[in-house]
Amino acid sequence: MNHISDYLTQHKDRFLNELIELLKMPSVSADPAFSQDVLDTAEKVKIALLDAGCTTAEIHETAGYPIVYGERIIDSDLPTVLVYGHYDVQPADPLELWDSPPYEPVIKKTAEHPEGAIYARGACDDKGQMYMHVKALEFMVKTDQLPCNVKFMIEGEEEVGSDNLEIYVANNKEKLKNDIILISDTGMIANDVPSVTTGLRGLSYVEVQVTGPNRDVHSGLYGGAVANPINILAKMIASLHDENNRVTIPGFYDKVEELSQDERAEMAKAPFDLEEYKKALDIEAVYGEKGYSTNERNSIRPTLDVNGIWGGYIGEGAKTVIASKAYAKISMRLVPNQDWKAITELFISHFESIAPKGVTVKVTPHHGGQGYVTPINTIGYKAASKAYETTFGKKPIPQRGGGSIPIVALFEKELESKTILMGFGLDSDAIHSPNEHFGVWNYLKGIETIPYFYQYFTELSN
Amino acid sequence: MNHISDYLTQHKDRFLNELIELLKMPSVSADPAFSQDVLDTAEKVKIALLDAGCTTAEIHETAGYPIVYGERIIDSDLPTVLVYGHYDVQPADPLELWDSPPYEPVIKKTAEHPEGAIYARGACDDKGQMYMHVKALEFMVKTDQLPCNVKFMIEGEEEVGSDNLEIYVANNKEKLKNDIILISDTGMIANDVPSVTTGLRGLSYVEVQVTGPNRDVHSGLYGGAVANPINILAKMIASLHDENNRVTIPGFYDKVEELSQDERAEMAKAPFDLEEYKKALDIEAVYGEKGYSTNERNSIRPTLDVNGIWGGYIGEGAKTVIASKAYAKISMRLVPNQDWKAITELFISHFESIAPKGVTVKVTPHHGGQGYVTPINTIGYKAASKAYETTFGKKPIPQRGGGSIPIVALFEKELESKTILMGFGLDSDAIHSPNEHFGVWNYLKGIETIPYFYQYFTELSN
Repeated sequence: MNHISDYLTQHKDRFLNELIELLKMPSVSADPAFSQDVLDTAEKVKIALLDAGCTTAEIHETAGYPIVYGERIIDSDLPTVLVYGHYDVQPADPLELWDSPPYEPVIKKTAEHPEGAIYARGACDDKGQMYMHVKALEFMVKTDQLPCNVKFMIEGEEEVGSDNLEIYVANNKEKLKNDIILISDTGMIANDVPSVTTGLRGLSYVEVQVTGPNRDVHSGLYGGAVANPINILAKMIASLHDENNRVTIPGFYDKVEELSQDERAEMAKAPFDLEEYKKALDIEAVYGEKGYSTNERNSIRPTLDVNGIWGGYIGEGAKTVIASKAYAKISMRLVPNQDWKAITELFISHFESIAPKGVTVKVTPHHGGQGYVTPINTIGYKAASKAYETTFGKKPIPQRGGGSIPIVALFEKELESKTILMGFGLDSDAIHSPNEHFGVWNYLKGIETIPYFYQYFTELSN
Repeated sequence: MNHISDYLTQHKDRFLNELIELLKMPSVSADPAFSQDVLDTAEKVKIALLDAGCTTAEIHETAGYPIVYGERIIDSDLPTVLVYGHYDVQPADPLELWDSPPYEPVIKKTAEHPEGAIYARGACDDKGQMYMHVKALEFMVKTDQLPCNVKFMIEGEEEVGSDNLEIYVANNKEKLKNDIILISDTGMIANDVPSVTTGLRGLSYVEVQVTGPNRDVHSGLYGGAVANPINILAKMIASLHDENNRVTIPGFYDKVEELSQDERAEMAKAPFDLEEYKKALDIEAVYGEKGYSTNERNSIRPTLDVNGIWGGYIGEGAKTVIASKAYAKISMRLVPNQDWKAITELFISHFESIAPKGVTVKVTPHHGGQGYVTPINTIGYKAASKAYETTFGKKPIPQRGGGSIPIVALFEKELESKTILMGFGLDSDAIHSPNEHFGVWNYLKGIETIPYFYQYFTELSN
C-alpha cells in the first residue's frame, strides 16, 4: 500500500467534513418521527459509495428501511470482501445530558483523544466506523491498489433488530457471495492496545406489562388492599437475580459455554485497570455475577438488565395514585450456544409464572439474535492481525466483546463465510449514551489499516 | 329547615351549572403550567362565597397558592362552624384514559348514578364537595335560617401537601376560632348506606433516586459488570415488603395502634362485597398484609406504595442502554400514633442502608401529615348523625377512611377543635383517576343534609 500516509494527510480535512455532514442527519430508526431522515441518509450513503469507487450502488427496498448495496468487482477469480455496516443510529435522548446538540457535530480535544474527537450521535456507532471503509475504498481505487473485489451492505435497522436484513440476506445469497465479511462496529482496548473482537454476545429484548386494577386508583382508598403493579413489577424484576447475581430463570444457564481455566487465564492477560474503570464511571464498586471478573462478566457471561421502566405518576410533585399498569424493557445478553429464541421463551414462561394473583402480565418480544465466536486460526483473522501490526506496530489482542451484532451469526449461516470484527472505537466513546464521540486519530487509523487487510487477505487467499 | 326540598328543586339547574363552570378551571396545584388557572379559581371561589351570603370574603396570600377566607358572623354568642375545603385538583394525566376531556364537564348516567354524574377532574375531590357547603350556606342565608356563625377556609394546595396552610393556620388562630370544623373531602359507603369518616390515615410521601454509572452506558459493553440502577431500585423496592406483605422498615410498626377484636368485629359489620369489589377493579384477587381483611388493610393498617417509577429508555422500540439514574415516588399511608416525620426519617435511613455498593441513593421528602381519629360521642358527631338520619332516613355508619387529609390533625392541635368528615362521594367516583365523577344525587343530597348539621349542632351546643 503505497502513499496511504500521504493520501491521508492530503485528504484528512475532507474525510472529516464528509463524516460530519453524514452525522448531521438524525437517522434514528427506533422513532418514526425521523423516518424521512433515515431514508435521506440511505441516499447519501449510496452516493458516497459511488463517489468512492463502487461501480454499482443501489437502494434496496425492504419492508422497513432500505439496505444500501454497492460493489466493485474487478476479477471474479480474486477473493471478495463483503463490508457490513449500518447508517441508522440510536435515539439521542436524554437530550439534556448532551454538552452539544447530538446532530450538530463538533470536534473537541479530550484526555483520551488529544487529537480531538467528533461528538455526535452515530459518530462511532456506526457512521464513523462504517465510513472508514468507504474512504479506505476510495484510497485503494484512486491509487489503483484495490487488490480484490468488494461489496458493501449498509443497513438502516441495526439499532432495532435487523429484522428485514435477515430476509434480505436469505433472498440474496448469490449477490452477497463473499470470502470474508468485514465489520467495524465494535471497539478496541486502547489506542496503544489494538484488539480484534472474536466473540459477540447474543441478545433477547422484551417488553413487559403488569396490570393491576383496571384504572388508576387513589392510593389512600386502595393502598395496601390491592396489588400495586409497580410494586409487583419491582418484586418480579428483583426475583430475576439471586443473591449471587445469577439469573434465576430456570434453564437460563443450561447451554452456556463454560470456558476452561486456561482460556480464562488467557483472557485475564488483557490489560485492565479496575480502579480506572470505576473512576471513569464514578462508581465505588463493580457489581455482577459472583465468581467472575469484570471482563468476564461483560463478555463470556450472560446477563439480564432492565433498560427502561415506567409507571404511575412521573411528573413534577406528588400524586397519590396506584397505577393500573407498570412497564419495563428488559434485555438479556447471551453467550454462544444460548439460542435467543429459546431464551425468550424461557423468559416469557418464567415471568408469567411468577406473577402473583391480582395482576396480569403480558410479555412482548422486541428482537434478538445469536451470539458468535470466531476462531483465530483463519486467514481472515491472520490478515487482520497483520494489518494492525503494520499500522499500529504491534499485534492486536483477540478479545470477546460484550455487545451484540445479531446479524453476524446469521451471516455465517446464510452466506457460509466468517466475519472479522475490526473495531477502532473505545469503550469510553459513549456509544448509545449522551456525548457519543469518535476519535479523529481512530477514524484516520481505521482508514489507514483497512487497505492492509485487503492486501494481506488477498495474498493469504492465494 | 323549611323549604329545603323546594329550594333545591327550584335552583337545582343553577347549582349544577355553577359547579360545572368551576370544574372547567384546571386548577392543578402540582404543575406550575397551571398556576394562573389556580389563581383564577381562587378568585372565583371568593366571589361564590360573597354571592352565597358571606359578609366578608378575602384572598389571603401565602408563599404558595392563596387561601380563600370568608365568613358570616351573626352573633358572637352562637357557635361557629369552620368549613374547610380545597379548590385545587390532582393532575389529570394520563389524559388518554379519559372518556371526555377532564376540564369539559359532562353529565352521564351510570349504573351507580342513575340520576347522572358530573364527569370532570375535581368533580368529587374536592370542588363538588366543597361547593355543596357554599350552596348550603346560600340556602340558609336566603331563607333566613342560618342558625349560627360560619367561616370558610378554602385552600389551593391540598393536593401538594398543604405546607402553606399550616403556617396560615398557626398565624391566624384567632380569626379561625371555631367550635367545630366541617369537611366534605371523603366518601360514604353507598347511596343507601350513609357513613361518617371517623379516622384518616397519615401520609409520608418521598421521592428516591438511585444513581449508578455517571452516564447512561451501553448494555452490551457494561451489562452484567456494573450495578444497573433500575435493577437495584427494583430490588430495593421489593425488599420493602416481606413475604406477608408487611413493611420491612425497622420500627415502622412500633407505634401502630392495634385494634381490639371487638373493634375489628364492629368494623367487619360494614357492608362489603369482596366479589363486587374485585369485579369493579377487574382483578382476580385482592392483595395485602396477611391477617387483615380488605377493609382493614385500607383503613387501620399502614401501607407503602410506589406511586410512580421511571428510568432508562421509555420511548417506542428498544434501546440497549443501562441508565445512569432510576427514580420512584413512594408514599406511605400511616395510622394514628405513627408520626409522619419520624416515619419519613425511618424510611430515609433504611433506604440508604439497603443500597448496595456501586450505587448512590438520594431520598427527598415531598410532604406528609398525621393520621387522625375522631370520637363518636361528641356533639359534632351526634349532630352529623342526626342530620344524615333526617335526610337519608337512617343513621350513618362510623367508618375509618384510608385516605389522608393531613391538615386535620393540625387543626386539632392549633385550633383545638374537632373535625367532622361528612363525605358524600363514593369509592367508585374515581378520584385521582381518569373519569373522576360525582353523582348529581350526591351533590344535591349534600346540599340538603348540611343545613341540618348546622341546626342540630347549634341546638346541641346550647
